[in-house]
Amino acid sequence: MGDNLTFLAPAGSLLALAFAAYLGYSVLQFSEGTDEMKAIAAAVREGAGAYLRRQYKGVALFFGVMFVILFALALGRYITIFVPFAFITGGFFSGLAGFIGMSMATRSSARTAKAAIDGLNKGLRVAFSSGAVMGLTVVGLGLLDLSFWFYFLNWYYRALEPAIRIQNVTSAMLTFGMGASSYALFARVGGGIFTKAADVGADLVGKVEAGIPEDDPRNAAVIADNVGDNVGDVAGMGADLYESYVGSIVATAALAVAAGFGVRGVTVPLIMASVGVLASVIGTFFVRSGESAEQSVLLAALRRGVYTSSAIIVVVSFFIIRGLLGADNMGVYWAVIAGLVAGNIIGFSTEYYTSAGFNPTRRVAGTAVTGPATVIIGGLSVGMLSTVVPVATVGVAILVSFYLSGGLRDFNLGLYGVGISAVGMLSTLGITLATDAYGPVADNAGGIAEMAHLDPGVRKRTDALDALGNTTAATGKGFAIGSVGKGLAIGSAALTALALIAAYRDQVELIAKGLNLPRAIDLSLLNPRLLVGLFVGGVMPFVFCSLAMNAVGRAAQEIVIEVRRQFKEIVGLMEGKAKADYARCVDICTRAAQKEMVAPALSAIIVPIAIGLLFSVEAVAGLLTGATVTGFVLAIMMANAGGSWDNAKKFIEEGNLGGKGSQAHKAAVVGDTVGDPFKDTAGPSLNILIKLLSMVSVVFASFILQNALLR
Amino acid sequence: MGDNLTFLAPAGSLLALAFAAYLGYSVLQFSEGTDEMKAIAAAVREGAGAYLRRQYKGVALFFGVMFVILFALALGRYITIFVPFAFITGGFFSGLAGFIGMSMATRSSARTAKAAIDGLNKGLRVAFSSGAVMGLTVVGLGLLDLSFWFYFLNWYYRALEPAIRIQNVTSAMLTFGMGASSYALFARVGGGIFTKAADVGADLVGKVEAGIPEDDPRNAAVIADNVGDNVGDVAGMGADLYESYVGSIVATAALAVAAGFGVRGVTVPLIMASVGVLASVIGTFFVRSGESAEQSVLLAALRRGVYTSSAIIVVVSFFIIRGLLGADNMGVYWAVIAGLVAGNIIGFSTEYYTSAGFNPTRRVAGTAVTGPATVIIGGLSVGMLSTVVPVATVGVAILVSFYLSGGLRDFNLGLYGVGISAVGMLSTLGITLATDAYGPVADNAGGIAEMAHLDPGVRKRTDALDALGNTTAATGKGFAIGSVGKGLAIGSAALTALALIAAYRDQVELIAKGLNLPRAIDLSLLNPRLLVGLFVGGVMPFVFCSLAMNAVGRAAQEIVIEVRRQFKEIVGLMEGKAKADYARCVDICTRAAQKEMVAPALSAIIVPIAIGLLFSVEAVAGLLTGATVTGFVLAIMMANAGGSWDNAKKFIEEGNLGGKGSQAHKAAVVGDTVGDPFKDTAGPSLNILIKLLSMVSVVFASFILQNALLR
Repeated sequence: MGDNLTFLAPAGSLLALAFAAYLGYSVLQFSEGTDEMKAIAAAVREGAGAYLRRQYKGVALFFGVMFVILFALALGRYITIFVPFAFITGGFFSGLAGFIGMSMATRSSARTAKAAIDGLNKGLRVAFSSGAVMGLTVVGLGLLDLSFWFYFLNWYYRALEPAIRIQNVTSAMLTFGMGASSYALFARVGGGIFTKAADVGADLVGKVEAGIPEDDPRNAAVIADNVGDNVGDVAGMGADLYESYVGSIVATAALAVAAGFGVRGVTVPLIMASVGVLASVIGTFFVRSGESAEQSVLLAALRRGVYTSSAIIVVVSFFIIRGLLGADNMGVYWAVIAGLVAGNIIGFSTEYYTSAGFNPTRRVAGTAVTGPATVIIGGLSVGMLSTVVPVATVGVAILVSFYLSGGLRDFNLGLYGVGISAVGMLSTLGITLATDAYGPVADNAGGIAEMAHLDPGVRKRTDALDALGNTTAATGKGFAIGSVGKGLAIGSAALTALALIAAYRDQVELIAKGLNLPRAIDLSLLNPRLLVGLFVGGVMPFVFCSLAMNAVGRAAQEIVIEVRRQFKEIVGLMEGKAKADYARCVDICTRAAQKEMVAPALSAIIVPIAIGLLFSVEAVAGLLTGATVTGFVLAIMMANAGGSWDNAKKFIEEGNLGGKGSQAHKAAVVGDTVGDPFKDTAGPSLNILIKLLSMVSVVFASFILQNALLR
Repeated sequence: MGDNLTFLAPAGSLLALAFAAYLGYSVLQFSEGTDEMKAIAAAVREGAGAYLRRQYKGVALFFGVMFVILFALALGRYITIFVPFAFITGGFFSGLAGFIGMSMATRSSARTAKAAIDGLNKGLRVAFSSGAVMGLTVVGLGLLDLSFWFYFLNWYYRALEPAIRIQNVTSAMLTFGMGASSYALFARVGGGIFTKAADVGADLVGKVEAGIPEDDPRNAAVIADNVGDNVGDVAGMGADLYESYVGSIVATAALAVAAGFGVRGVTVPLIMASVGVLASVIGTFFVRSGESAEQSVLLAALRRGVYTSSAIIVVVSFFIIRGLLGADNMGVYWAVIAGLVAGNIIGFSTEYYTSAGFNPTRRVAGTAVTGPATVIIGGLSVGMLSTVVPVATVGVAILVSFYLSGGLRDFNLGLYGVGISAVGMLSTLGITLATDAYGPVADNAGGIAEMAHLDPGVRKRTDALDALGNTTAATGKGFAIGSVGKGLAIGSAALTALALIAAYRDQVELIAKGLNLPRAIDLSLLNPRLLVGLFVGGVMPFVFCSLAMNAVGRAAQEIVIEVRRQFKEIVGLMEGKAKADYARCVDICTRAAQKEMVAPALSAIIVPIAIGLLFSVEAVAGLLTGATVTGFVLAIMMANAGGSWDNAKKFIEEGNLGGKGSQAHKAAVVGDTVGDPFKDTAGPSLNILIKLLSMVSVVFASFILQNALLR
């Protein structure tokens, strides 16, 4: 057993894509319902398609420029000639994963609403299958691209001796990760701005000012809001998790050489990913419910699927690691387990802090009674407090992975363990992502049910489906599934970022040796350059969030003004006799998102290069570490504060503390509105930012080592 | 010239204290005005005194326990026997500085109001003199305690050879800093909770609910609000800046040995501080205004004082450093200049982001038009963006100080330079603090003018005085003075914290050598223990803020309920025929502050020790660095977001965007209320936290090296 098992990677990829195609085909066999439902679904689909086309144009320009820059670096022999091409394919596949997921989602929401007319189980199957298409597409495309480059580069460098060969292969693969992360950052930020501008704008002017319900067709922003769910929560998340998945694998692969595992160290994450595909496919068969609308039953169905997949990974990876790395390195197996357990703990803690079933969010709801100011203070302080458990968990996972993998014997062995724990955490992504992507589909199905004036019983069923996706299980009976997905994204980001920093150091030392540079790389904490980098890195996530939130605020204000204008100028709109001009709002969001995503996304490329050119590699290492620390903490804080406000509002809407329309409810809506850009724009983008910074630094390391001002 | 110049330290101390006594005496010669004014001033004075007495009791218990622990450590030979005593005196003097400042302030506000009846210049002189008493008391007591320990320890260790002697002296002096920081943290957190609970509670129930003006005597929380200004903004700030001042000096002194300067390296900061006293005293004579109520004229008066003092320092420190460290080390002089310039740049940037005279706060005011949610998003994003300039400035100051002081020749020389730049930044504290402490006095004078129904023209004058202290110079003509003080506090905290981390490393290496421990101290960024420490440190400021803000929110809710009760139950209160029960509100705030300050303050002591005992000294170094990075960034973010909301509200109150009573104004009040605990409770406490963590770590280093689980 050994190198010849690499064929499992393309095999896993094909399995994932084939099963995704099968599921997609079977979803499309369902009916989209009445003409009205079809028309609404078509409007959302068109808006989403138009947005993505616009986004692709903008991003293509960026990729074009980066390609030229990377090509010039390759001509200058700072990087190998494959880097620009790997970069492009990473971006392309990341975008493709989002595109396929979104196409599926926009074709599934009306079908879910129609299926929910027939029964809850049928609705669940349609929505979940649609989510699974996205989950499997993400992992399938990821493995496809990884396999392609792995085989191609191994063939190309076949004349080199194994250790050097694998070094060349893995460092070119890192650039492929950089492409994926670059696209993902644009998609997350752009999609996040779109969806939250529409959502905040629609709520401010509809719910708060005009006093009409959510998803009311008189509100001109309501289609934009539905489009936003798809471009932000589906296309954006697809690209995001594609980059998490690929990032964890390439980072671990890059550490394999230093750890002394050679090509086998690279195959382990690839094969674990393939087994993860199989486990996910098997898991999807366990997601079925009866006709009960009880959340706990639906939850159990989803959980059964996820846990079955996890169990398969726990068992099979034991044999993979034993077979490939030998009985001496079974500590690496414990790193896998540490990763899986850590992901789950973080998910549980997310649930604890954000679900109205537990004390923290109940307390936030209580602070709404004295008005919006106290609810903001309450939510922020829950968000801040909620960072403790995830950080402690990741800390313990790092120590366990590092020491059990043999970090005391060999430092690099321990770092490889940290990388593999992130791979373990993400191995069941095919199915965990399905449960995440399912949320927006159910949400849109509800919107369609409302707008198409379906029977309230149907809306109740879609709401039951939606509540699962939103982790609102207010019953407190169990942990909703979506929060496990969030836990994985956050936890794996921190672990992968650390692995990438380690890979950066390896790369820098290798290049410095290759160039015969007369200097040691001093990564001591008290090196003033490193400290400066640490401060700059520490501040970056704050600036990034500031830009993203400001963009949402500005675009939401434009939406408010536009909807107000339509209420005033379109005769008969409020009486339901005239139609609102939905396309205008979609257009406002699209333009805003495209314009505003540029600055934050570019900062991730420009800042590490600029800091490197000024103060050289130590400052860059500091920058990466600083950004990882504050980015990780801030991402948790924002996600959980946002989730807590969201569910505190829903808790009040269920009739607690005065219920809908009370002063407490109004205050809670303010909290929820502030939380929107926290949890769906700024927060999740940080996970990508901290990895992209490292990958950019690796790619430009040689250039910086030779051209920095302070060498 | 050399060692025999140390007499300047006690001389400077005596000058400061004597001049403070003279100023205090001259303020007390003024009349307190009518009987009504006297009665109000007495009520505030009593409330503040009652609070401080209660605080001293609680803190005394803490100091007692710590004394026992430290004494036990001394018996176990982990630390020298002077540590527990130095710790106690640091706490005592820090408390005393706050007490004297507060006694003066509570005796000056009615006198300022009375003086303002006679004229603006007279009012300015009284308020400013009162502030100067506090500024000079802080530096005077600081130098007194420093001189005492310096002389005493030098005498005690006279038998040791100079290098060892000075090492022992400086490390015992660090514990004196730890005592000062411990007390300051309690005072800042407790005082901050008190003042903001009263302020937020009074505003929520008075301005927002009942629609009565600020400082209206019918509001039962109004005396508590005035008491809060004194216990938080005066007593808390006095203790805070005492610890900043002393901390920068002891941290630099601790680095003198490693830098090879010996006792002269310790004398430089002491003498610079003494010259700073003289410069401050001279500066106070330049603070005079004519009878114009123009802010720019008043501002110019305050600025003249501060800039004169700075100029004196710039000139004299050249000769001090040349004389003591020699012409070879003139780079250290540039570190002083770098510190002074950096402090001013940070102050200017604070002003830019928080004054309604500039774009950022204008934009925040604009976001109020669409309601509280957008104003919160707007203020947070201004706060986050405002971190860039201070962080970049401190980064440049670090590099300049490090490299120009000779960091390339000798690493430790560079670190000494970083320490001295913080000393330079704070050398004119005597006068900059005067301009800060002056704010609450003017604020209270306004309150007294309102409550005692003085002529509106008097209130207008006190408002003109107050506006300066609040950095509200909406004219945009110049930079208000208070923000320079804030800049110094934040900038010096970051620099001092770094110097302390360096001192920690020196200490650990020395102890490890002394113990013949068979291990190297590995401070590499990729050491997993260090990384775990970094994450824990990164999360600490968030948790700390969460606890502090939650405490304010909870106590404010209690106030709201109490004031509501009084409105309902006290017959004739709303008609002005009956008096409110002010003491109840003072009591609620006092109890809340005392109870809630314990957890955050204790965490600063317990966490570094616990992390050390688990993962040893590398994790502690990571913890200190992580806490410094996120603490620094978060402190700026919170201070500036809070300041911006505050001034956006005032901007609207001046009649812009709809003016008082408009929807925009209501939204802006929400922003201001959220900002209150940001800028006056959580934010400034972080500056103390990051230093205290380091000092605790130094004191417990030996114990941890010998007893850590993972050695």
